[in-house]
Amino acid sequence: MSEGAGEQRGRATAEMVAERAKVSRVAVSRAFNPHTSLKPEKRELILKIAQELNYTPDRAARALVSGRTHLVGVIVPDVCSHWESQEIDALTTALQAEGFATLLFKTRTDYSMDEKLLAYMRGFNPDSVIAFVENVKPRTLARFLDRAVPIYVDYPLAGQAAPAAGEPLFDRLNILQHDGIDQAVALLQGYGVSRIAYLSGIDKSRASIARETTLRQVMAERGMAPPTVIQGDFGYDAAYQSTIDLFRVGVGAEAIFAANDVSAFGALDALRYELNLRVPQDVSVIGFDDIAQSHWKSYNLTTVKFDLDARVRALVRLILRRLNTPDAPGLEETLNTRLVVRGTVG
Amino acid sequence: MSEGAGEQRGRATAEMVAERAKVSRVAVSRAFNPHTSLKPEKRELILKIAQELNYTPDRAARALVSGRTHLVGVIVPDVCSHWESQEIDALTTALQAEGFATLLFKTRTDYSMDEKLLAYMRGFNPDSVIAFVENVKPRTLARFLDRAVPIYVDYPLAGQAAPAAGEPLFDRLNILQHDGIDQAVALLQGYGVSRIAYLSGIDKSRASIARETTLRQVMAERGMAPPTVIQGDFGYDAAYQSTIDLFRVGVGAEAIFAANDVSAFGALDALRYELNLRVPQDVSVIGFDDIAQSHWKSYNLTTVKFDLDARVRALVRLILRRLNTPDAPGLEETLNTRLVVRGTVG
Repeated sequence: MSEGAGEQRGRATAEMVAERAKVSRVAVSRAFNPHTSLKPEKRELILKIAQELNYTPDRAARALVSGRTHLVGVIVPDVCSHWESQEIDALTTALQAEGFATLLFKTRTDYSMDEKLLAYMRGFNPDSVIAFVENVKPRTLARFLDRAVPIYVDYPLAGQAAPAAGEPLFDRLNILQHDGIDQAVALLQGYGVSRIAYLSGIDKSRASIARETTLRQVMAERGMAPPTVIQGDFGYDAAYQSTIDLFRVGVGAEAIFAANDVSAFGALDALRYELNLRVPQDVSVIGFDDIAQSHWKSYNLTTVKFDLDARVRALVRLILRRLNTPDAPGLEETLNTRLVVRGTVG
Repeated sequence: MSEGAGEQRGRATAEMVAERAKVSRVAVSRAFNPHTSLKPEKRELILKIAQELNYTPDRAARALVSGRTHLVGVIVPDVCSHWESQEIDALTTALQAEGFATLLFKTRTDYSMDEKLLAYMRGFNPDSVIAFVENVKPRTLARFLDRAVPIYVDYPLAGQAAPAAGEPLFDRLNILQHDGIDQAVALLQGYGVSRIAYLSGIDKSRASIARETTLRQVMAERGMAPPTVIQGDFGYDAAYQSTIDLFRVGVGAEAIFAANDVSAFGALDALRYELNLRVPQDVSVIGFDDIAQSHWKSYNLTTVKFDLDARVRALVRLILRRLNTPDAPGLEETLNTRLVVRGTVG
């Protein structure tokens, strides 16, 4: 172990930099915070002098004093899913503008890994953590956070009970799926479709369960028979195979409603390249997410959209509000969904 | 500002946990390190007692003593590019297994942002930083690192000069592109193709420049006329538009060699859905990267592959070797490329 190489070089203080640059102590802080505005020449001068004096506003040292690390942990099962990579990208940009860095923690959906991962995460002492309930439950997560109040992204159902008293404190981003799904089913109904198959995500995903439950509810309200359910895992390959099975072994369908866009791509390719069915003339396909790939000509997918920018803004608002009011009761933000119509229904 | 919330709760020491659990001080450390193995019951007991005593092995405190933060910075222009999200995902998994967390820094390709971003990054004092020369030059980066030796991912050309003396110290992952590109051109030649267009990435990308230079060299060696170059930016939409222009306004081509797979998808969709040309009967298409989407039936792309797992293993090896030998001269690892043949050439 090579210890304290940084210290051996000797650290200057912010006061030393301020004195040499003939600026205030506050200006030195501002120069190192990408969020603040400062005249370019002034920033340049401060950074130059800081460089000469070997000054860095070390967050490790600062964290011991302020109790802030400026790290935001994001617990994700899979960085390279299209939706998550687009969310992490936008979130990193937004957090950077507020002076925070994004720290990635990859979990498995296997719960047994979590305690180990969480003990490890705890060591970084993040200011905030964004999580999904299928990856780690609030009660478990609370045991591994010293002071951060986690944010859960949730998909509440109509008439869902409020959290039980005695639950640990957490903040919540609610995604309401009803409107987008209702618009999708209305469009299908308008084209005379009645036999719908739901292509699910992984079993324990709250998003997928909420989508299926909402779809059943919407179809019942509209006097339609319940959907056939076929098993997917949010990925292309499982969707491809399940779609083939639905038509070769199962009862077929007039439309496939997929748990996410990538599954919808798998279903589309299976219909066209394996089953020789036309989309949308023979079978309609609808996805969920509206990832960037959905407008690509090979797919041109009709899908239920979250507004990614609105979602990221809501997450950043929750983080900042919580840091400003650490003792507030559970904070909430709520977002809606809507249908984006392209070429796979008709 | 709420200060020191964590401290108010009072921090126990590792010794206190060890004493109460009747284990060694080392066992307590091991319990919090996901890399080490420990009997599940023992780990469970230690974590339970640590929880009761409110003990966390805080890396901020530890960092001040050891000079290690266990953070690895990754400077990326775009997390949601398919290739990068897949690399970040695999890298995060591999680093986590070694006890490091991945810290994302998003840069613009606009150099003027860099000083601000780098000053900000410096505050987190990462143990290592992975960078591309088009985002930040070694000389600039060195000014903002106290002790980390950065790793540059590079695409050296045959006969390229060694780095000049006086360059700041950095480690290097070399990706050799010649073999994969030579195999691609040989395959095209074998199918009688001679007029090739190169669909570029963004102008300042070393990867794209090296691909174009290597393609020219390989085609010259094989007695072919130089490629037509059309402008892309590694994205789908620019590739789509440039391909239309190539055939509607420009000279056309018998094959398009794209700077990455996503560009190749844009070219393919433009050929099929806008220009009514058949792939591969009328025009062949080849990509670069072999991202997960390349095997999807709508694309089924022939492409030049990096081995992602080998690449991530090489990066982790470089990080660990550098931390073990902080004063070693520049370390290097080298990887090769090869052609993956699917359905878009023939």
